[in-house]
Amino acid sequence: MTAHMAGQERVGEGRPPDWAACVRQELGDIEVALGKVIGSSVPAITRISDHLLTAGGKRLRPALVTLAAKACCAPYDPDRVVIIAAATELIHMATLMHDDVIDRTDSRRGRATANAFWGNKLTVLSGDYVLSRAFWLLTKDGDLRALRLIADLTLAMSEGEALQLIISGCVKSWEEYYWRIIRDKTARFLDVCCQCGAIVAGGDESLVKALSEYGLNLGIAFQITDDILDITGDPAKTGKPVGSDLRDGKITLPVLLALQNSVEPDGQALCKMAEQQNIGEKEITAICEAALRCGAVDMAREAAAGYVDKAHRCLEDVPSSPARDALYELAESIIGRMS
Amino acid sequence: MTAHMAGQERVGEGRPPDWAACVRQELGDIEVALGKVIGSSVPAITRISDHLLTAGGKRLRPALVTLAAKACCAPYDPDRVVIIAAATELIHMATLMHDDVIDRTDSRRGRATANAFWGNKLTVLSGDYVLSRAFWLLTKDGDLRALRLIADLTLAMSEGEALQLIISGCVKSWEEYYWRIIRDKTARFLDVCCQCGAIVAGGDESLVKALSEYGLNLGIAFQITDDILDITGDPAKTGKPVGSDLRDGKITLPVLLALQNSVEPDGQALCKMAEQQNIGEKEITAICEAALRCGAVDMAREAAAGYVDKAHRCLEDVPSSPARDALYELAESIIGRMS
Repeated sequence: MTAHMAGQERVGEGRPPDWAACVRQELGDIEVALGKVIGSSVPAITRISDHLLTAGGKRLRPALVTLAAKACCAPYDPDRVVIIAAATELIHMATLMHDDVIDRTDSRRGRATANAFWGNKLTVLSGDYVLSRAFWLLTKDGDLRALRLIADLTLAMSEGEALQLIISGCVKSWEEYYWRIIRDKTARFLDVCCQCGAIVAGGDESLVKALSEYGLNLGIAFQITDDILDITGDPAKTGKPVGSDLRDGKITLPVLLALQNSVEPDGQALCKMAEQQNIGEKEITAICEAALRCGAVDMAREAAAGYVDKAHRCLEDVPSSPARDALYELAESIIGRMS
Repeated sequence: MTAHMAGQERVGEGRPPDWAACVRQELGDIEVALGKVIGSSVPAITRISDHLLTAGGKRLRPALVTLAAKACCAPYDPDRVVIIAAATELIHMATLMHDDVIDRTDSRRGRATANAFWGNKLTVLSGDYVLSRAFWLLTKDGDLRALRLIADLTLAMSEGEALQLIISGCVKSWEEYYWRIIRDKTARFLDVCCQCGAIVAGGDESLVKALSEYGLNLGIAFQITDDILDITGDPAKTGKPVGSDLRDGKITLPVLLALQNSVEPDGQALCKMAEQQNIGEKEITAICEAALRCGAVDMAREAAAGYVDKAHRCLEDVPSSPARDALYELAESIIGRMS
């Protein structure tokens, strides 16, 4: 894996994960499609979008659209799957672009963010361009059911992101809203990707539902492991420094569990640290170490593993096929990601 | 007209314009619909969106959707027109929200901007929410032709805004791109509103085309008068200080004409002033006075009047009706707006 592919969404260790073999051809086609539609007649937009596109990433969302379509085991139009899969990656990219503006992060996926190069203004507009391009692709395909799912999704995602921002640094609110936030900003997206794939492949309602629930559980597990990697991850591999979430006022599951279970320092002391307006490196290190020491990270891992199990069980209602096996492995690899 | 209705889109002088009588009932229904859909389960988003919604505005875009539908003189579902008209206003609102982030403007429509109260972060996300809500409404309605037009539009608008930003303060580039920018960021929007109204009302292709071209010409005239008002307008009525465009690096038609026609100071001297990185109040006043003195403002007015004439001529292909008369008056009122 090249340096620029390291990052938040890396699944596995330095080689393409096995599940990806099942969609290698399709992911190649999707990459070509993305390269084509990202271009704008305004060169600066093309440069900014291209910067994010070439930074790579696991293309988890397009892979899910494709695998869900294949898992329906019925003939479908592969070009339509490419279009919808590309649209989901564009929506993800637009979110990252607006997130860069929002959190003033310095790096993502191991490279300087668009924002650091081009400033807030162009980055917001390029995000708008990329989001519009996603809807443009979806209207080109013309599946109203997929369009409705995606519009519902982008609505929920903006709400989840806003909620996360508003409760920044407030432990009590994170206790109340953690699950809603990870559902709205991550899990529903993977759910919708699976649904869209199944819909385009003409899957019946029970199949769409099974794959939808698989995606939701996968997404919850995925976000929890992301939250754990913020504490345990190697910055060279995750592409962001340890404790970035705490620095941004995000008080995630492993930290919440540490607040409940740590003895020395006790929960109240940790809570005080986590709620500091400009939290220092010393406090971040103390919280991360406490989370590891008191077993909070292990508990969070167990929670993630529980959702991977749930995701696996959803696949029992999906007919046996290489695509189903790949979806099973994909969920499994979320656990590998934690190690 | 109450203070908070004064602003960029004010048409007429202190009383509802005559053309509005034709759509008074519908605009009321649209306002109710907007109030309903703007609400989010995240209270901060509701507050920010509501702030912009209650700031008023002329609702020019919803009015055009409605008038274009009525001008087709065929039975149509009024609820669908309300939905699509509300979606166009939401898209306009989302643009204003992201524009607030972008230009760090201090006031719009005579009130403090969302950004000044809530900061960049929440304003970007609230803009995303409002844009998503627009697509949500459009997918609810389910007219793919309207959806495609709107997706094309938001794409072009983000490009127009980005282009405008990139060439900020560069006279040569503004000479090259002025017409493209006003088409992409304003005129196409009014064009698409008219098309959507006509499509929902089942207008035949020639009618859709006539109303589309009416909207495009109206939009060009509207933007030119906006550019003129930046020089000649009363800040108490426009809701923004004189010379805001110059301050933002926008070198619009009346200024471009001044650069070509002014003798004292001559074009070169004015050009130097307009291109200053942090243009001062003295330079802004000098440019505005030169534009008035050398006839550039009058020439821009004539250009706008020419587009109003073109808009009027497009209506010759529309059957006679009160709605057509209202569209005629609406275009006429653009000129009134200039005086």
